[in-house]
Amino acid sequence: MSSHPNEPVPARQGLSRRKLFGAAGVGAAVVGAAGAGALAGRATAAAPAVHLETAVPFRGEHQAGIVTEAQDRMHFATFDVTTNSRDDVIKMLADWTEMAERMTQGQEAFKNGATGQNPYAPPTDTGEALGLPPSQLTLTIGFGPSFFVKDGVDRFGIADKKSAQLVDLPKFPNEKIEPARSGGDIVVQACANDPQVAVHAIRNLARIGFGTVAVRYSQLGFGRTSSTTREQTTPRNLFGFKDGTANLRSDETDKLNRFVWVGDGDGPAWLTGGTYLVARRIRMRIEQWDRTTLLEQERVIGRQKGSGAPMGQSDEFDELNFTLKDKKDKPLIDEVAHVRLASKENLGGIEILRRGYNFTDGSDGFGHLDAGLFFIAFVRDPLTQFIPMQNALSRKDALNEYITPTSSALFACPPGIREGDTSTFWGSTLFD
Amino acid sequence: MSSHPNEPVPARQGLSRRKLFGAAGVGAAVVGAAGAGALAGRATAAAPAVHLETAVPFRGEHQAGIVTEAQDRMHFATFDVTTNSRDDVIKMLADWTEMAERMTQGQEAFKNGATGQNPYAPPTDTGEALGLPPSQLTLTIGFGPSFFVKDGVDRFGIADKKSAQLVDLPKFPNEKIEPARSGGDIVVQACANDPQVAVHAIRNLARIGFGTVAVRYSQLGFGRTSSTTREQTTPRNLFGFKDGTANLRSDETDKLNRFVWVGDGDGPAWLTGGTYLVARRIRMRIEQWDRTTLLEQERVIGRQKGSGAPMGQSDEFDELNFTLKDKKDKPLIDEVAHVRLASKENLGGIEILRRGYNFTDGSDGFGHLDAGLFFIAFVRDPLTQFIPMQNALSRKDALNEYITPTSSALFACPPGIREGDTSTFWGSTLFD
Repeated sequence: MSSHPNEPVPARQGLSRRKLFGAAGVGAAVVGAAGAGALAGRATAAAPAVHLETAVPFRGEHQAGIVTEAQDRMHFATFDVTTNSRDDVIKMLADWTEMAERMTQGQEAFKNGATGQNPYAPPTDTGEALGLPPSQLTLTIGFGPSFFVKDGVDRFGIADKKSAQLVDLPKFPNEKIEPARSGGDIVVQACANDPQVAVHAIRNLARIGFGTVAVRYSQLGFGRTSSTTREQTTPRNLFGFKDGTANLRSDETDKLNRFVWVGDGDGPAWLTGGTYLVARRIRMRIEQWDRTTLLEQERVIGRQKGSGAPMGQSDEFDELNFTLKDKKDKPLIDEVAHVRLASKENLGGIEILRRGYNFTDGSDGFGHLDAGLFFIAFVRDPLTQFIPMQNALSRKDALNEYITPTSSALFACPPGIREGDTSTFWGSTLFD
Repeated sequence: MSSHPNEPVPARQGLSRRKLFGAAGVGAAVVGAAGAGALAGRATAAAPAVHLETAVPFRGEHQAGIVTEAQDRMHFATFDVTTNSRDDVIKMLADWTEMAERMTQGQEAFKNGATGQNPYAPPTDTGEALGLPPSQLTLTIGFGPSFFVKDGVDRFGIADKKSAQLVDLPKFPNEKIEPARSGGDIVVQACANDPQVAVHAIRNLARIGFGTVAVRYSQLGFGRTSSTTREQTTPRNLFGFKDGTANLRSDETDKLNRFVWVGDGDGPAWLTGGTYLVARRIRMRIEQWDRTTLLEQERVIGRQKGSGAPMGQSDEFDELNFTLKDKKDKPLIDEVAHVRLASKENLGGIEILRRGYNFTDGSDGFGHLDAGLFFIAFVRDPLTQFIPMQNALSRKDALNEYITPTSSALFACPPGIREGDTSTFWGSTLFD
């Protein structure tokens, strides 16, 4: 046990830490027989629940995959539309909707798709998810600014449906955006507890979209970085810190209506009950971070690494207290700590719903892991929420020394398709 | 239900297929309430077991991660040694062994590593696995040819310990090897049921190795492509076929001794009880495959896509029968079908232990998924097993039209460290 210099140590902090890490201090227990059970180790809570047999309803007031309990794996893909045919796009979106509903319910993309149809034709399901349960698969669709107008051209006669909030995100300080993995006309976010199920879903959509869309980029993620329900313990990002402690939760209906769901009158009618998806691939400078001191890491984040409690406090869910100071009268939560700058107190009350994932894409050829956080957030209005927040963070946040955003995109996600509604499909209200 | 033209349809095949896919043929069931239970869908077997709480013993006659029940996720990394100091390499391997034993048992890399040590120093555990159980993590080490002699130089005084079988794999037809993700002086294969645990392990080894080694390349995998125990159902690769049906199993002791474990007298004493690891990143031409007919897919593989049964037979585990013919006197298992060419009958009795993983590394910038199979095999002698097998396959295999190996490497894996042995560590017998 060590205490932090220049910091008051409340009694409960000490206890909390011992409780968390005491067990892990025992020398490595050696197990003599294969298949032995759990050991006292890092884990103090129960293992994360992995719900493989559960299917998430496809239909509802809102799309699934937004306030749905965050699954453990993600396959995120954006598509470029490669045709100017409005009819082809409409046809594909209708096909996608049918496939998406089937796959989220644990079915093949098409009935008997992998093996039961005409053997002289390509199978209509690629088969790698045969035998796998639904795994809480959700598929969430969104449309980028370029779906409405690309290079000044209104390809599909829907330019007037574009909302004023659906903009190309501006260039922020401290980012190095790679155009080839940014943007996209259409996004599909696949989340599931089994990566094979998420990969299968995107692949089958891409397959049926051949000739109409092409994958622009795709990203796999694991180990969600936010809790969206109170039942989920807060996961850790690749900086080793609990991430998403102060996130909005799925039962905070009033806040979700205020910060996530597009309201009646906010913009075009087709988006009411929908939301905006912000995606940012944030590369972490893992190796530099790993060589900084614990003090520096906690200063940069503004929370304690073990418990996740705000600096100077003892419980993860304690409210941030920006007035606490150390003996030298320095704020315990640094003036440029990430949690201070990202807090609603600093941002005039702005909140967002985060639903990101960790990623590791091998190494970068220079001996470093190509790893970080694939940030995903859902907001009611990017102009008044994400953009000012990111402007504030990207100028001052101490974390900037250790991160570089490498991709950026914004999409408008329509509301859900209601139970029993057989006339609408993904995006159909855009073409009314 | 369709039957195959030009093929006899045994009674049981029809039944078997109906049984497998009948349930999936029902229209998409719609669930009205969040959190509803399992649906009749693709899954007919129980969900794959995901053992998060289980720790795999680190010590034993052989290293773990070879015949160990295959976990669902992998982080594979090779390292280049960046020093000529024999002492530094020895020190790092000793540290790695201690860390590996701790981490596989669900502990931090070092005692109280993430938060409990000196706050003025970098944490000795990076923290992202705090709170996560062991998840059946195994860490398996191997040494490449360049560890012994690099550019003609015996950097560490161990050139005489290199076995004759530890060669640079030759160039095979139909491969497009990228040097930057091939080879490596040292390999560590991390397998676990949680990718965050596998990524954490490799990262902490890389961190502590700073100044001694640098990551050469790393690869994440999911959805193992082989069963190594009879309890595991055969998983599917990204071609949608069951993969690994005929794999060696962990209870086939005689065969493992014959085909996997290096025997006394096979080579240098330090390798007795060890094995060779062959790694090949095999890019699949997913989109081309998806546009071929079911007939062509089954002709190329030589098995039925649904059941996994050999062509002309009914059960997955039926022995391959190469003499069966259709009405036109053509062999039901094509002359260049993958299973025929890879069979022990075609290879003079050669068998190998496969333990590969599917991968999807986003997209390739041309609208295609960068996906495939990260092939891993363990063999007693690459010269008489893998190399002749690959020569036979790479010249004729019908699958070659749909795959391209893009990386290649061979490593010698020492035996395990015995229970209670405090004097040896990973590779220590190389330096005796």
